[in-house]
Amino acid sequence: MAAPKYLTGDKDAIKSFVDKYDVFLFDCDGVLWSGDDLFPGTVPTLEFLRSKNKQVVFVTNNSTKSRQDYKKKLESMGIPATAEEVFGSSYSASIYISRILPKEHPQLKEKNKVFVIGEAGIEAELDSEGVPHIGGTDPAFRRDIRPEDYKLMANGDPSLIDPQVGVVLVGLDFHYNYFKMCLAMQYIRRGALFLATNIDSTLPSAGSLFPGAGSMSAALSLAFQREPITFGKPSQAMMDAIEGKFQFDRSKAVMVGDRANTDIRFGLEGKLGGTLGVLTGVSTREEFLDGDSRPAFYVDKLGDLLES
Amino acid sequence: MAAPKYLTGDKDAIKSFVDKYDVFLFDCDGVLWSGDDLFPGTVPTLEFLRSKNKQVVFVTNNSTKSRQDYKKKLESMGIPATAEEVFGSSYSASIYISRILPKEHPQLKEKNKVFVIGEAGIEAELDSEGVPHIGGTDPAFRRDIRPEDYKLMANGDPSLIDPQVGVVLVGLDFHYNYFKMCLAMQYIRRGALFLATNIDSTLPSAGSLFPGAGSMSAALSLAFQREPITFGKPSQAMMDAIEGKFQFDRSKAVMVGDRANTDIRFGLEGKLGGTLGVLTGVSTREEFLDGDSRPAFYVDKLGDLLES
Repeated sequence: MAAPKYLTGDKDAIKSFVDKYDVFLFDCDGVLWSGDDLFPGTVPTLEFLRSKNKQVVFVTNNSTKSRQDYKKKLESMGIPATAEEVFGSSYSASIYISRILPKEHPQLKEKNKVFVIGEAGIEAELDSEGVPHIGGTDPAFRRDIRPEDYKLMANGDPSLIDPQVGVVLVGLDFHYNYFKMCLAMQYIRRGALFLATNIDSTLPSAGSLFPGAGSMSAALSLAFQREPITFGKPSQAMMDAIEGKFQFDRSKAVMVGDRANTDIRFGLEGKLGGTLGVLTGVSTREEFLDGDSRPAFYVDKLGDLLES
Repeated sequence: MAAPKYLTGDKDAIKSFVDKYDVFLFDCDGVLWSGDDLFPGTVPTLEFLRSKNKQVVFVTNNSTKSRQDYKKKLESMGIPATAEEVFGSSYSASIYISRILPKEHPQLKEKNKVFVIGEAGIEAELDSEGVPHIGGTDPAFRRDIRPEDYKLMANGDPSLIDPQVGVVLVGLDFHYNYFKMCLAMQYIRRGALFLATNIDSTLPSAGSLFPGAGSMSAALSLAFQREPITFGKPSQAMMDAIEGKFQFDRSKAVMVGDRANTDIRFGLEGKLGGTLGVLTGVSTREEFLDGDSRPAFYVDKLGDLLES
């Protein structure tokens, strides 16, 4: 593996880097902002890239927001964006369920309903693809389990078990509870596919870490001794979906991110033309230089690209 | 490893087996009963062993019940028992916290409060050992997370983060939620020890399987990339606690169970004088004969011991 090239302060190298790519895929938190704080160089850098007719794509593992929600979040941070430029794990999962699953699992044509553990973002993206679903934000699932539920579930009673459900999709759910865990387990035992929007173990917030979407699927992975099919970075299901939509030449695309083991790995395994690490997030210089997933290039911060 | 000896129908072998041991450790579900159905041979076999002055111990990974609760459950199934004969994972964990931890982790003398994910059984056993605790069945923890909670937790605000907490103890919690998950993660990030009563991935009920205590700790194991210290079978912390209480000679004790990878392994690793597999539960004859954890003896059903 070649050593990552350090671009900060090297005008010629930066110009050559920018000229080389047509499509810039951006991880967001740790690259464009940190928590609630927008980095000063973010907006000018994006403007600069757009002025050069670069395609900008915001790639997020956040499953709780739809593309429309995430566009609003970008705008609230002061970043102009369109929903078309956003690619999230819920959207990626929804495309898989609506377009790929019927080919790979024809038996699910009659059982195409999704049991959702997650928030409104997943529901909105499933709706956008016309996929029927239950669970999610429905208040009927935000309750304690009752003693009689065990037998009803075990017997597949239609008051609790919907015979149309053939897919369980797990994302970050702020209303996660034992009742939902039981239903997900029961559906998978009955043959439903086990999918997760993403399996990030933690959710960065307020300068600390909280349980991420992977915390929700971990219980099921343990019980069934297998991992879900996932759609967040670094899953290549996400890259395939992005390519399917933007129809770009991978050799002319670059992934920009702060995490070696998710963002950079995502770009490397996707055989993109390049990867750019930034040091404003999780990974350190040492991880970029000596880790398993080394970017082709790295900068101190995204705004350093303006120095060309 | 010697081949397991099949005792059913072999009067001499059964007599020699029974004579050999003074202490009989019993797993319960799958051995004494299945779900709500008591096996017909259970009560006469226990009477027979007691008539021969054998010490009977009921060993359960069920963390939701205290010893008193479990004695009541045994009696409700028609099995006479005393609370002294019951050994559960919550009791085992409580003994560890009250008696072993102060020696192994003297810094916790000032931070000896336990944040509990679990039900009343854990609280009752911690109370029996005089260990202070929060969380558990307190309704204040049965709520959704609020947007302001992230910052309060991250900052260690005393309205949410108790500075006396030095231990997180995770058991089966029917009121598990994201708020509790967040608190547990925050305490462990602040240096609290990560303990689990048991890590059974599933809970058998109504002839089916539901998420077990291990489903609750799996999220934290994923986030911290390490397993908790556990107290259920096959953890030897449980065996040490049982030995500490009954002061028996391990060579004169036998573990009776239906699961090779928990019950039988528990006896083998505990270097008990013997292990007895029964075929009325999870493991099959093939698993007993060819698996990694083979019992010294096996029978079709517990009541076969009456044939001597």
